[in-house]
Amino acid sequence: MGVEERRQQLIGVALDLFSHRSPDDVSIDEIASAAGISRPLVYHYFPGKLSLYEAALRRAADDLAERFVEPHEGPLGTRLLRVTGRFLSFVDEHGPGFSALMRGGPAAGPSSTNALIDSVRQAAYVQILTHLGVTDPPARLELVVRSWISLAESTALIWLEGRRIPRAELERQLVHDFAALAAVSAAYDEEMAELLRTLLAGEPAGSPFADLLDRLAALVP
Amino acid sequence: MGVEERRQQLIGVALDLFSHRSPDDVSIDEIASAAGISRPLVYHYFPGKLSLYEAALRRAADDLAERFVEPHEGPLGTRLLRVTGRFLSFVDEHGPGFSALMRGGPAAGPSSTNALIDSVRQAAYVQILTHLGVTDPPARLELVVRSWISLAESTALIWLEGRRIPRAELERQLVHDFAALAAVSAAYDEEMAELLRTLLAGEPAGSPFADLLDRLAALVP
Repeated sequence: MGVEERRQQLIGVALDLFSHRSPDDVSIDEIASAAGISRPLVYHYFPGKLSLYEAALRRAADDLAERFVEPHEGPLGTRLLRVTGRFLSFVDEHGPGFSALMRGGPAAGPSSTNALIDSVRQAAYVQILTHLGVTDPPARLELVVRSWISLAESTALIWLEGRRIPRAELERQLVHDFAALAAVSAAYDEEMAELLRTLLAGEPAGSPFADLLDRLAALVP
Repeated sequence: MGVEERRQQLIGVALDLFSHRSPDDVSIDEIASAAGISRPLVYHYFPGKLSLYEAALRRAADDLAERFVEPHEGPLGTRLLRVTGRFLSFVDEHGPGFSALMRGGPAAGPSSTNALIDSVRQAAYVQILTHLGVTDPPARLELVVRSWISLAESTALIWLEGRRIPRAELERQLVHDFAALAAVSAAYDEEMAELLRTLLAGEPAGSPFADLLDRLAALVP
C-alpha cells in the first residue's frame, strides 16, 4: 500500500472503532490489530491517538456534511425529511462515538473538536437557508433554524440512550418540530408569518408539513 | 474575616469575574486585586484557578437550580413563563461565562464540569415533571421535556451572541416552543394527546398557552 492509501485505511479502521465505543476506550494497539499492522507502523503514519482521532473525526464530519446536500425539488417538508433521515442514520451508525463527542468528553482537546462541530452545524444552517431561498435571514429566522439544528442534535443524543422511539417516528417528529418552531415565531412576528405562508403554500396535501397541520387541527377542540 | 467567610467572598468575586469575561482570560492576580487581598492569600484558600473556577461554577449552578423552583399554583403556561424568565435573567447576568462554559471551552476539565451541567439539567427536568404531575414519564414525554431544556440552552446561547431579540419575547417564545414540541408529539401519539388535553384544559383564556393557540389558529388559512 502507498502512504496515502495506508493513511486512509487507518482512518477508516479508527473511525469504525471510535464510532462503536467511547473513543477514550480505544487503544492504538486495537487500531493496529484491526488494521492488520504493527503498533510502530501506526505511529509511522500518525504521531499518536489524538491525531488519528482528529483525522477520523474530520472524515465523519465530511460524511455528515455531504448528507445535508439535497436537490432543490419537491415539497420542503419532504426534502427536510430526507436530510433528517440521513442525519439520524449517521447518528445510528456512529452511536457511542457521537455521544462521547457531543457530550464533550473524548480524547481530543475541546477547541479543535468544537471548531469542527461548529463547521458541521454551519453547513447544515447554510443548506437549510438555501432551501428556504433566503440569503440574508432576519434574527428570528436565524434563531429558528439554528435552534432547530441544536434540537436535532439533542434529540438524537437522548434517543441514543435507549432507542425507545422508532427512528422513523423520530425523523418525522424532527421535521414537524421545525415547522412548529417556525410557527411559534410566526405567531408573533409578521415577517416570519409571511415566510411561513410562502413555505406552506408550496406544500401539497400529504406532505409532512401539511399532514402536521391536519393533525394539529384535529387536536384543537 | 473567618476562613469560610473569606472563601465565600472569594467565590463571589471570582464568579463575578468569570461571568463577565471568558474564564480563560481571568487571572488569579485580578481575582486577588478585586477581592482586595494578596495573590498568595488567594492560594491560601484555593490551590489554584481551577478549584476557584469549580467553586464559582457550583455556586452558579445552585443559584440556577433554585430559580427553577416555582409554586404549584395557577396556569402551567404562566408558571413556565416565570421560570423561563428567571433562567434568561441568569443567562443575562452571567453571559460571557455561560457562553464559554456551554461551548465547552473553559479552564475546568470537561468531566467535572459536564457532571455539574447535567445535574442542573436534571433539576430542571424533575421540576417540570412535578408541575406536569407525572412521576413515571413515557419515553415521548421524557424526550419532549429534555429536548426542550436543551432548546432553552441553545436559544439562550444564540441570543447572547448579539441580543438581537428582546428578552421578554424570547421568554414567551420558549414557553410556546414547549407547547409546540408537546403538540407535535401529541399529534402522533394518543398518550401524549391525552396529556396535552389535560394540560390545556386548565389554561384560562389569556394564559401563554391559550394565547398561542389563538394566534396559531389565526395563522392557519
